[in-house]
Amino acid sequence: MSDHFDTLETRDPEQRELALLAALPVQIAHAKSRAPAFARLLADVDPREIKTRAALAKLPVTRKTELVERQKAARPFGGFAASGWGELARVIASPGPIYEPEGRRPDWWRLARALYAAGFRRGDLVHNCFAYHLAPAGFMLESGAQALGCTVFPGGTGQTELQVHAMADLAPAGYVGTPSFLRIILEKADELGVKLPSLRKALVSGEAFLAPHREALVARDIQGYQVYATADLGSIAYETRARAGLVVDEGVLVEIVRPGTGDPVPEGEVGEVVVTALTNADYPLIRFGTGDLSAVLPGASPCGRTNLRIKGWMGRADQTTKVKGMFVHPGQIAAIVARHPEIAKARLVVENPDGNDRMTLHVEPRSADVAIAAEAIIASIRDVTKLRGELVLRKPGELANDGKVIDDLRRIE
Amino acid sequence: MSDHFDTLETRDPEQRELALLAALPVQIAHAKSRAPAFARLLADVDPREIKTRAALAKLPVTRKTELVERQKAARPFGGFAASGWGELARVIASPGPIYEPEGRRPDWWRLARALYAAGFRRGDLVHNCFAYHLAPAGFMLESGAQALGCTVFPGGTGQTELQVHAMADLAPAGYVGTPSFLRIILEKADELGVKLPSLRKALVSGEAFLAPHREALVARDIQGYQVYATADLGSIAYETRARAGLVVDEGVLVEIVRPGTGDPVPEGEVGEVVVTALTNADYPLIRFGTGDLSAVLPGASPCGRTNLRIKGWMGRADQTTKVKGMFVHPGQIAAIVARHPEIAKARLVVENPDGNDRMTLHVEPRSADVAIAAEAIIASIRDVTKLRGELVLRKPGELANDGKVIDDLRRIE
Repeated sequence: MSDHFDTLETRDPEQRELALLAALPVQIAHAKSRAPAFARLLADVDPREIKTRAALAKLPVTRKTELVERQKAARPFGGFAASGWGELARVIASPGPIYEPEGRRPDWWRLARALYAAGFRRGDLVHNCFAYHLAPAGFMLESGAQALGCTVFPGGTGQTELQVHAMADLAPAGYVGTPSFLRIILEKADELGVKLPSLRKALVSGEAFLAPHREALVARDIQGYQVYATADLGSIAYETRARAGLVVDEGVLVEIVRPGTGDPVPEGEVGEVVVTALTNADYPLIRFGTGDLSAVLPGASPCGRTNLRIKGWMGRADQTTKVKGMFVHPGQIAAIVARHPEIAKARLVVENPDGNDRMTLHVEPRSADVAIAAEAIIASIRDVTKLRGELVLRKPGELANDGKVIDDLRRIE
Repeated sequence: MSDHFDTLETRDPEQRELALLAALPVQIAHAKSRAPAFARLLADVDPREIKTRAALAKLPVTRKTELVERQKAARPFGGFAASGWGELARVIASPGPIYEPEGRRPDWWRLARALYAAGFRRGDLVHNCFAYHLAPAGFMLESGAQALGCTVFPGGTGQTELQVHAMADLAPAGYVGTPSFLRIILEKADELGVKLPSLRKALVSGEAFLAPHREALVARDIQGYQVYATADLGSIAYETRARAGLVVDEGVLVEIVRPGTGDPVPEGEVGEVVVTALTNADYPLIRFGTGDLSAVLPGASPCGRTNLRIKGWMGRADQTTKVKGMFVHPGQIAAIVARHPEIAKARLVVENPDGNDRMTLHVEPRSADVAIAAEAIIASIRDVTKLRGELVLRKPGELANDGKVIDDLRRIE
């Protein structure tokens, strides 16, 4: 059996890029014609002109945090969905609440590819410990496993002892769920003296999956892989046997942007994952800001898949905070930087050394010999944030590559 | 829009009977060839000969209680399923544990018909409060609603306040779940001051749905109907607007038998519901004893559906008990009756007036003038149960029509 789900995964990267860029105007036109929110957001955009990444990068980013308000104003989907009741198979709730549509197309969330990369194959029994109630992950993995030709045991969350007994009785080939619940199940099995020899693979998500945990699974002869997916977009990127970052799914176009902006960062720099769903007719999200931080990995994966790789989840991009009772957004830091072309990168550090909030903008110049207009920048801070801030000049390359635009170092005693 | 899901519901009852009886030999042959347990149970049966209800009534009944042991001996399905991993969409757990297969055919559990009778239509949003985790009902109703062209909100169980808010936000046309959870949700909505004007219909199951509760829903302008379904068989019978008993589903052949036996009772008498699944290729259950009591209602439903009607759930048929430490089964009472053709009906009453177990067999003669061989019957009691029992002679028609073969009246102080 092939190591790859299909030939899309191994195609020439230039061919893929051409295919993605060819799909872009079609999807943008679809979104404008069927989703009222995109008709409004992209009113002045001619879809035919959005055929390069540079052109895409000029379109507005819609952030997950905005969806709560947009949906509240226009139930159920804030005008972002192209399908309604009856056309959709399900509507699912995420905390917020944010409601997500699920269409009728098989493997609507595109999880089959990630399951395949984790070793799942037609005919496998899959024990699914993601929640199906008021939460999307259960159905996301369920529909991927169904498309792959697996049989699913809907274990859900909790009831650890029953999960152990069902695994012993039914002998599933693999587990899907959070990595922490897999650990809890395995420890419960040890405690009960129950062996689970059939369980040899796992696809995990929803939490960090760190090397010690992965190694602990290997010691039990279980190969665990992770997938990065969201309820709005489905699968975004997935781990492969190469264990070298996460390979981007074939159905999405991924950009990494500076938090608070729509501007792509240079390759390798940490920023917010922004995704355009190219194959989803029901929920044609254009430049959807996930609120998650990641970075592009250079080069190609040793596993033979030729798509872009990202590092996986590196934290939350939405660093909005309150200083002296006033909200400060990453977008405001971007606005300050935009006023001063000599600044390459900036980070607002918030502290409260004496119990009083203090803001300091750390800036990196474009090069060592460029002049920094300190007073003008301090005036911009005041102007944009309505708060007083100090300035610290840093050397080029000195600020950490961690996607942080606002670094809140205050301690709550 | 039609009041009926399809024309099967209103066909001539004789045509239906012919169709059911024509399907019978085909399904029995399929069960024998694909399900090892039926190959063994029906080894001496020529499927071509099972073309009448009388012939069917001679085949062994497989009872739900036996499945636990049969499955333990041969995981996962005790040899009763015709499909395996990969062919099946899901495997689901019921208490016992009993594992149930679910195939890939749309509306595998045949719940769309019951949903239609309860007023659900294509394009409706359905709020599903049955559990999807380690339990079958969530998926049973889900697949029926999907087949009908509804969109489903998988609410699951618990989290009442979130359910109320989701209902207020998404405006579902109807609810499916237990009747008691619907009451809890509506009371919570009252408490929160949340109006749910969209909610106008409900299909409930899993518990008794009594007139006061139904009327309380009507007072809120919600029409609630019930469906009788099991995880092994799917939909067995469903309520209609006529509210006159439950109409049997078009995909099953229903018999009512004397508890502990495979013998059909006269029309109207309470007995165990025994079902043969005629359209299910994956789980071709032949004479499956549900363990539930019901009775056939005479005549046809005023709603225009021409199928057999039953009264709905009337209690548990498995009345096995322990007397002086020895098991006594309904089948043993049937064996005693079989030895004495003058007995029409019998009921074993178990009491412990002075702390000691006492058994009394109440018997009804076939007619008032038939002779009862009391001593021979007492000997038969002793012979069959290995326990001493007394005899009480009752008048014809005096024993209650409640399906009780063993009536355990002992009190635990």
